[in-house]
Amino acid sequence: MNKQALEYVDKHADEFKNQLKELLSIPSVSTLAEHQADCERAAEWLAADMRRIGFETVEVIHTKWHPVVFAEWLGAGMNAPTVLVYCHYDVQPADMSDGWHTPPFQPTEQDGKVFARGAIDSKSNVMAQLKAAEAVIKTGSSPVNIKLMFEGDEESASENMTAFVAQYGDRLKCDVAIICDGSMADREQPDIAYGLRGVVTMELEVSGPKQDLHSGHFGGTVHNPIQALAEIISQLHNADGSVNVAGFYDDVLPLDEEERAELAKALPWIESEWVDVAAAPAVWGEPDYNLHERIGARPTLEINGIRGGFAGEGFKTVLPGMALAKISCRLVPNQTSQVIYERLRDAIAAITPRTVKAELRLIEIGEPALIDRHSPAVEAAKDAYAQVWGKHPHFVREGGSIPVVVDLQKALDMQIVLMSFGYKGCAAHGPNEHVYLDMWYKGMAITIQFYEELSQRMKRA
Amino acid sequence: MNKQALEYVDKHADEFKNQLKELLSIPSVSTLAEHQADCERAAEWLAADMRRIGFETVEVIHTKWHPVVFAEWLGAGMNAPTVLVYCHYDVQPADMSDGWHTPPFQPTEQDGKVFARGAIDSKSNVMAQLKAAEAVIKTGSSPVNIKLMFEGDEESASENMTAFVAQYGDRLKCDVAIICDGSMADREQPDIAYGLRGVVTMELEVSGPKQDLHSGHFGGTVHNPIQALAEIISQLHNADGSVNVAGFYDDVLPLDEEERAELAKALPWIESEWVDVAAAPAVWGEPDYNLHERIGARPTLEINGIRGGFAGEGFKTVLPGMALAKISCRLVPNQTSQVIYERLRDAIAAITPRTVKAELRLIEIGEPALIDRHSPAVEAAKDAYAQVWGKHPHFVREGGSIPVVVDLQKALDMQIVLMSFGYKGCAAHGPNEHVYLDMWYKGMAITIQFYEELSQRMKRA
Repeated sequence: MNKQALEYVDKHADEFKNQLKELLSIPSVSTLAEHQADCERAAEWLAADMRRIGFETVEVIHTKWHPVVFAEWLGAGMNAPTVLVYCHYDVQPADMSDGWHTPPFQPTEQDGKVFARGAIDSKSNVMAQLKAAEAVIKTGSSPVNIKLMFEGDEESASENMTAFVAQYGDRLKCDVAIICDGSMADREQPDIAYGLRGVVTMELEVSGPKQDLHSGHFGGTVHNPIQALAEIISQLHNADGSVNVAGFYDDVLPLDEEERAELAKALPWIESEWVDVAAAPAVWGEPDYNLHERIGARPTLEINGIRGGFAGEGFKTVLPGMALAKISCRLVPNQTSQVIYERLRDAIAAITPRTVKAELRLIEIGEPALIDRHSPAVEAAKDAYAQVWGKHPHFVREGGSIPVVVDLQKALDMQIVLMSFGYKGCAAHGPNEHVYLDMWYKGMAITIQFYEELSQRMKRA
Repeated sequence: MNKQALEYVDKHADEFKNQLKELLSIPSVSTLAEHQADCERAAEWLAADMRRIGFETVEVIHTKWHPVVFAEWLGAGMNAPTVLVYCHYDVQPADMSDGWHTPPFQPTEQDGKVFARGAIDSKSNVMAQLKAAEAVIKTGSSPVNIKLMFEGDEESASENMTAFVAQYGDRLKCDVAIICDGSMADREQPDIAYGLRGVVTMELEVSGPKQDLHSGHFGGTVHNPIQALAEIISQLHNADGSVNVAGFYDDVLPLDEEERAELAKALPWIESEWVDVAAAPAVWGEPDYNLHERIGARPTLEINGIRGGFAGEGFKTVLPGMALAKISCRLVPNQTSQVIYERLRDAIAAITPRTVKAELRLIEIGEPALIDRHSPAVEAAKDAYAQVWGKHPHFVREGGSIPVVVDLQKALDMQIVLMSFGYKGCAAHGPNEHVYLDMWYKGMAITIQFYEELSQRMKRA
């Protein structure tokens, strides 16, 4: 246990909190051009703090999109392990009219929580990592070398990072990368994610007549493209919820009994989250897999949007010329985006009637990731969480994606640990996003302890 | 043959055309509040012309919506039959940006056509009727009494007319009503419609989770409402194109062999229109009925619009909380809107899975109409068309609706004739709407001849 560093955190707790609020007050919305300067300001704010802390190299690296803030402190020496920390400082848009009770970029503290856009996703993660680094560096007690890489385009699917990781790979070299994003399924029970689904997004267009028609003049003689699209969509799943596309499951890595037992530990928390947040009339999905497995370890085919004809207020008796659906597949190891796209394309071609035309277009791809949960780095994280929380963390497979993980896995030889400190029920991307301060301080303690655990396991000869 | 009246038309041909253009230059768009005054202006313009022609009573009758222009000339005497002429002077919206080559409210003559909004739907019908009346009245040669009723809300589904017909029924009394709207399937071959489909419009909402979800966090455990909606829609038709709703066809009046033979005469023209206008990859629909029968004599279930999730530019991996479809059924005698709504509602309830909720809401109803094509009035019209065109008209069943027909059938005891003079390929409701002037002048001649035929058949004792 690094007593010096933990005491430093205690002593500076209020100062740290004020700094968190300062960062939260910068509206670094990466998806809106009008906030370009705010993203720059957030990057410079972070760089200034890194310099004050004592990082040897601090750079705001300009990219085609928003800057990456990169810092290096190698004071632990050649024999100590090197940790690369990834977080993102950009946030989703936010507007009072979405239902905020307090201005989203005026951080408001109430009942041990701070309300602000970015509070949970992901500025509290950024600041937990930065302040843990400060505590070990300022007290001269760091057992590891530390590199920080904070990006500003995560809310735009990190499209910047593939090129960045490829270009700056040498400088990112490390023994362990901490990917600090996301949140935990429960307020009282920590968990560590080790699986992330990939996602391939597509667009299916069905066209029939050469133009919109009057449904009175032609209804009954033309296969309505909306109906034809519905007929195609309805054939993409079996009645039991499994995907009805030839070869869809071929490359799915099966779960073994040990992993299923591990995943089952977190099941009650995942079920409880489902009841709170999803609350559909009934659970749906592949009957051979429990809720946790369906979300984290099984691929899906989802209709994310649909449009056709006139669907606004009132009524127009149009027989439309086309209809369109947005379709995505969440992927699990060892599926790949391109193969899944091709299988779906072929399946749709096989069931498209000759009365319409159908085209499936590929939009974006993102591959799934699985992390060895028995690696020394993950074992170190597990013990660090257990020490701080007083209980063992659950291992979970996340249903979402963190694109940079795949980029790092491809480019560099390192161990990866996914860390998150906050609670999923904190309204990431929604109004009244917030962070629990007690969980945030625990995040710093976990990081400090993780450095200790890591150095014990990975000290070089 | 009424030589005097026909010569009057010849003599005033240019003047009539200029008057048509004058009326076309008034943007009487009934569905846009900003054109309220223009609708009034069109009504007053018509009333002034009626007074000039010599109608004994002329009234602009204000209603909850736009005015009805009503005129009466009873100079043919008590023993002559009385004709009530229905048309509408309101038009659809039109904007240059929709693809007009000339300003829609600056009528432009080119190659024997006049281009303007309302040219075919329905100001050329209004003016053909009005100028035919002028010709017979001004030459003192009218064998019939004439009442005119021109409405200003047809493009808003004539919602005004049910109340109007009920209130003014006494003044509308007549032996024969001419409903002059619509157009003919061919440029060289006249036709007379005697059937109109009804239409019932509905909205189907499928809801699942209590809010939009992240498809990564919950995909695979929630029955996607878009998918569930597609599954429901896909079950509403059989593979052969017939409607799969219990009892849907129960009340459909079957076609007898004589009527099928009559409808078959117009089939080549309807098929040719299909190829020109619809041009889908293949014809679709009930295999036991030909194209004409499917459009005019068979009911349909159409999906007129659909929406759910995010379907704009780009992609959002949302798992939406709801999805919605606009559904309409075209009805044929003796189906009724309420019964069809209830049968569809029950069919959907029976196939909705317990993983979602579905609600079918009724929006508007309109009943079908069938006119006795062997009545003296329709026989008179048939002979009038044959005389003017030099060929016998085809009898057709229209797939669309003219709501006022049902209102008149319900309220008054009269014979009804549907008349139209223009060509269907003239872009009603679309950009570059136009009318063929030769067909328009033929319309006046038909009306004048129709009065002759009628008086021969219906002269009172």
